[in-house]
Amino acid sequence: MVFKLYYWDGIPGRGEFVRLALEEAGADYVDVARQPGGTDAMLKLMKDGGGATSPFAPPFLIDGELIVSHVANILFYLGPRLGLAPEEEGLRHVANGLQLTITDCVAEVHDTHHPIGVSLYYEEQKSEASKRAANFLTERLPKYLGYYEGVLTRNPTGQAHSVGGQLSYVDLSLFQLIEGLRYAFPKAMGANEEHVPALIALHDAVAARPRILSYLASDRRLPFNESCVFRHYPELDRQF
Amino acid sequence: MVFKLYYWDGIPGRGEFVRLALEEAGADYVDVARQPGGTDAMLKLMKDGGGATSPFAPPFLIDGELIVSHVANILFYLGPRLGLAPEEEGLRHVANGLQLTITDCVAEVHDTHHPIGVSLYYEEQKSEASKRAANFLTERLPKYLGYYEGVLTRNPTGQAHSVGGQLSYVDLSLFQLIEGLRYAFPKAMGANEEHVPALIALHDAVAARPRILSYLASDRRLPFNESCVFRHYPELDRQF
Repeated sequence: MVFKLYYWDGIPGRGEFVRLALEEAGADYVDVARQPGGTDAMLKLMKDGGGATSPFAPPFLIDGELIVSHVANILFYLGPRLGLAPEEEGLRHVANGLQLTITDCVAEVHDTHHPIGVSLYYEEQKSEASKRAANFLTERLPKYLGYYEGVLTRNPTGQAHSVGGQLSYVDLSLFQLIEGLRYAFPKAMGANEEHVPALIALHDAVAARPRILSYLASDRRLPFNESCVFRHYPELDRQF
Repeated sequence: MVFKLYYWDGIPGRGEFVRLALEEAGADYVDVARQPGGTDAMLKLMKDGGGATSPFAPPFLIDGELIVSHVANILFYLGPRLGLAPEEEGLRHVANGLQLTITDCVAEVHDTHHPIGVSLYYEEQKSEASKRAANFLTERLPKYLGYYEGVLTRNPTGQAHSVGGQLSYVDLSLFQLIEGLRYAFPKAMGANEEHVPALIALHDAVAARPRILSYLASDRRLPFNESCVFRHYPELDRQF
């Protein structure tokens, strides 16, 4: 069975958390919106669901007749199928909880450049963005990074992984979170990384995995840009 | 086994989505932070996890040794145990996707009064809140309500339920979402409800269920207030 991933073309965005799991597993998948006519097909499914429950927003995954929406939900579904989730049911919910905190962090990153509304341009909300970004970098970023550092260092099976003793989709997502944060806020991350060595070691270990290395060098990996969730606006980064 | 629910005392907030499922099922549970010393116990668990993976924020649920965090994750876990989830695995992921869109909507409601930072008072971000709330009420609220109206009216098993042909935790959460939105934005909801009759009918059907009726009349049901996610600030509601 070929998995069909639907996400906006041209940005890594939220879809990238799913792509990394599919790539690490060597899964057979199609990135639909990057194929000819794919974006139209995606918009049509969002409108009518094609007989199934329509998703509110991309990304979503189609497996046979089933449409699964939201990053954490897609990964919860794919995890066991790709060998990237813990065996035990309880730990799968622990993994899902960790993933949902990543979701929240990503939403807050989005709101650093869109604090007033997604329907407005960044340029229409720059002064509010400046305030929200400063609050995020001062209060929230260290809290999120410190939280995951604690999750790793207190993992009873060792600090190489966030849940259980093996690689999971949560580890891959933490790699991507660090990548995105480094792109968006290089100065702030420069000041924070020394405080979260286990998290950075996990990032580096993921980056060195053969399939991830190969994926990152391929044209399937889209570069970050200013249409993405993670945007680099120097005026929003730490200023010292 | 007694479920232990941990959530801030004094507000319905995000914990209420979990409470409604526990109440509808007649489950044996303790609302820990509302017991003497409960808030301290909750804060301690958030700090060190008590040997398990610590949650980033309330609500979380403890079942035996397991800590499950995030509303949607708790409900995904509880759903089958309480008879409030579809039988089929695929539909469980559909339910989870619908629940996660509720999560996103609730987060946007929160940000109407806190667009700049959770560490600041509403009074410190009133002008930005006014802009964000106007954008939410104009662009986002009709989109979310219309989305769920479509989910109900296109449900192949009938529009009485959001997923499958039986009551699920998603239906209970949609009831609570409508309750919260009516409290926060009575004028805006007044103008929107006529366009989503199936959603309002679902709300009314949930409110009339015997266990929910009894729960709503009890002192276990906390009233909305201005420390909650759903806050009524008349200046943020629709002005005409």
